[in-house]
Amino acid sequence: MLNIPKAPMNWTLPELADLDALNPAALRARLQQRLDGKTKPLGSLGQIEALALRLGLILGTEAPQLQQPQLLVCAADHGLAAQGVSAYPSEVTAQMVLNFLAGGAAVSVLARQHGLALTVLDCGVRAELPAHPALRDCKVAPGSADSSLQPAMSAAQCRAALGHGAAAVRSLPGNALLLGEMGIGNTSAAALLLARLGGVPIEDCTGAGTGLDAAGVQRKTAVLRAVLQRHAQAQEPLDALAALGGFEIAALVGAVLEAAAQRRVIVVDGFITGAAVLVAARLRPALLQRCVFAHCGAERGHARLLELLGAEPLLRLGLRLGEGSGAALAWPLLVSACALLEQMASFESAGVSQSVSR
Amino acid sequence: MLNIPKAPMNWTLPELADLDALNPAALRARLQQRLDGKTKPLGSLGQIEALALRLGLILGTEAPQLQQPQLLVCAADHGLAAQGVSAYPSEVTAQMVLNFLAGGAAVSVLARQHGLALTVLDCGVRAELPAHPALRDCKVAPGSADSSLQPAMSAAQCRAALGHGAAAVRSLPGNALLLGEMGIGNTSAAALLLARLGGVPIEDCTGAGTGLDAAGVQRKTAVLRAVLQRHAQAQEPLDALAALGGFEIAALVGAVLEAAAQRRVIVVDGFITGAAVLVAARLRPALLQRCVFAHCGAERGHARLLELLGAEPLLRLGLRLGEGSGAALAWPLLVSACALLEQMASFESAGVSQSVSR
Repeated sequence: MLNIPKAPMNWTLPELADLDALNPAALRARLQQRLDGKTKPLGSLGQIEALALRLGLILGTEAPQLQQPQLLVCAADHGLAAQGVSAYPSEVTAQMVLNFLAGGAAVSVLARQHGLALTVLDCGVRAELPAHPALRDCKVAPGSADSSLQPAMSAAQCRAALGHGAAAVRSLPGNALLLGEMGIGNTSAAALLLARLGGVPIEDCTGAGTGLDAAGVQRKTAVLRAVLQRHAQAQEPLDALAALGGFEIAALVGAVLEAAAQRRVIVVDGFITGAAVLVAARLRPALLQRCVFAHCGAERGHARLLELLGAEPLLRLGLRLGEGSGAALAWPLLVSACALLEQMASFESAGVSQSVSR
Repeated sequence: MLNIPKAPMNWTLPELADLDALNPAALRARLQQRLDGKTKPLGSLGQIEALALRLGLILGTEAPQLQQPQLLVCAADHGLAAQGVSAYPSEVTAQMVLNFLAGGAAVSVLARQHGLALTVLDCGVRAELPAHPALRDCKVAPGSADSSLQPAMSAAQCRAALGHGAAAVRSLPGNALLLGEMGIGNTSAAALLLARLGGVPIEDCTGAGTGLDAAGVQRKTAVLRAVLQRHAQAQEPLDALAALGGFEIAALVGAVLEAAAQRRVIVVDGFITGAAVLVAARLRPALLQRCVFAHCGAERGHARLLELLGAEPLLRLGLRLGEGSGAALAWPLLVSACALLEQMASFESAGVSQSVSR
């Protein structure tokens, strides 16, 4: 197990400059010119071209290369799960972490397929987990508190989780970070954050999660509405994060802010990681320039969240698994974008005639 | 260069049974059961699960494995291009074929990335092309005739192109065929086939192709409307194919029918390969069971075509390049579907608790 600081309480919000200010003058124009000179009709690779442009701007080069991609899965339990907001019992969080580590989960299979290094952060799983080379003990507490009764975490716990996420990123190599999460009850925390920070009605944020039926969704919505009322004063991003919770979401917030400060490419997975990005973007809006949104999934609220973030997701496959599975599925598209930018011939080099209208 | 028959005039339409009749009883149920037993909420991998099911049904096994995937790009010139229906001159067809072979085109880059064997069929490129190990000379004629003046090809030429496509598939190894095409003017041929065989108004079939402006699309639409009127009698699939043309489209029709007869997985690229599948499906509807539709692109008519075929495409990235680029971009999703089916743990094997409601 890599040696990382056990409880970095000294987390501070990193500064984040606008990419256009950081990049050499005219980089955007040169990237666009390079794309337009490739042997294809202008713009005919659609979103892949926009992706190539974005990767170039994040990495600050006309020739972006993705190196040592890291898939970071943050896991924690939620006290709110006691209110019956999930179709699965809390014990599944730990069971699935063990499954990630044993290689049997969807994200394990996809990480192997694409050569993504998988690291799991135990940010607050209720059970004690056995040591494993890919698991890091960042347990702030054995599960967050029940936010229907009290804040999910204290301000100090929230900062600890933020610090763990940031420290994990600092300790990992590479220039691309893919995000995932595990935590029974965490679509509830994500819905609460979307409602509070996005001003979206709670019924538009609340979905079936792991598989509630219509009556279950209705109960969940009522629980979440009450939680929002109880924490009506928690309006600022970090206050809302602490009140509405999720240690794994807080760690993700810390991770994306740190990754953004390091100009890594951030590949956002689904609804829960998206909610973490929402919190982080409220603190540092320039963060969004460093993000690639992997997919729009089937969980109610996800499309609304992406819209709020101005995100154009790569995949629309009706996923609702989390774990980082959507990020991993989208990963080869990022590799393609870089490869096309690097390896495609230009009209000039290949001796191909230009469009009549050019 | 592999030795394949130069002009297989003896093409006959292969028989195609319904997959359910060919598969062992209950295969579908067993595949679904296997998917449902994996450690994830029921259905939470969305379209990836439907894809895994489809691949299992095509290959007739609970454990589908994709082997030696072949990317077959059919190329030809179109006489109709003389009517100014494209933003690029016809000479670009040959130039791009050389670019495919030299490794500088988008499809070349993507095929390398994903380990897809690339073969180009010269079905009727106007220029003479130099020999290359990945190029097959199946030239029916140096370009089809101008369908605004006469049928694009004779019935004999159509059968020759169909036969070339079928023979190419027979000579290639593996159990998965990805389709691509190149031919300046071929969005016109595809639009004509969609209008004629799908009964779609020509203005809903006609798009910008490689990059016409609005006035160009209007002129193109007028040309295509006149072509349809001239060949009003060509209503049957093969009559329409011969009249409205495209040697590369005819070769693709032959290729998909042969691949379907061999129960290969057929990965359909964009608008033009989709039009070839439409022709083939009118002859053998069971063909569609063997197809995976890679993407819905930006070319006008593509969404309508997919709807007509009852296809649910994997990607929606605003592509409009062709070449097989969309099929190649979608390929890793097929690999993922098989890997997830094979490698994911079950609830039982991983010791993960089931949903409360199961």
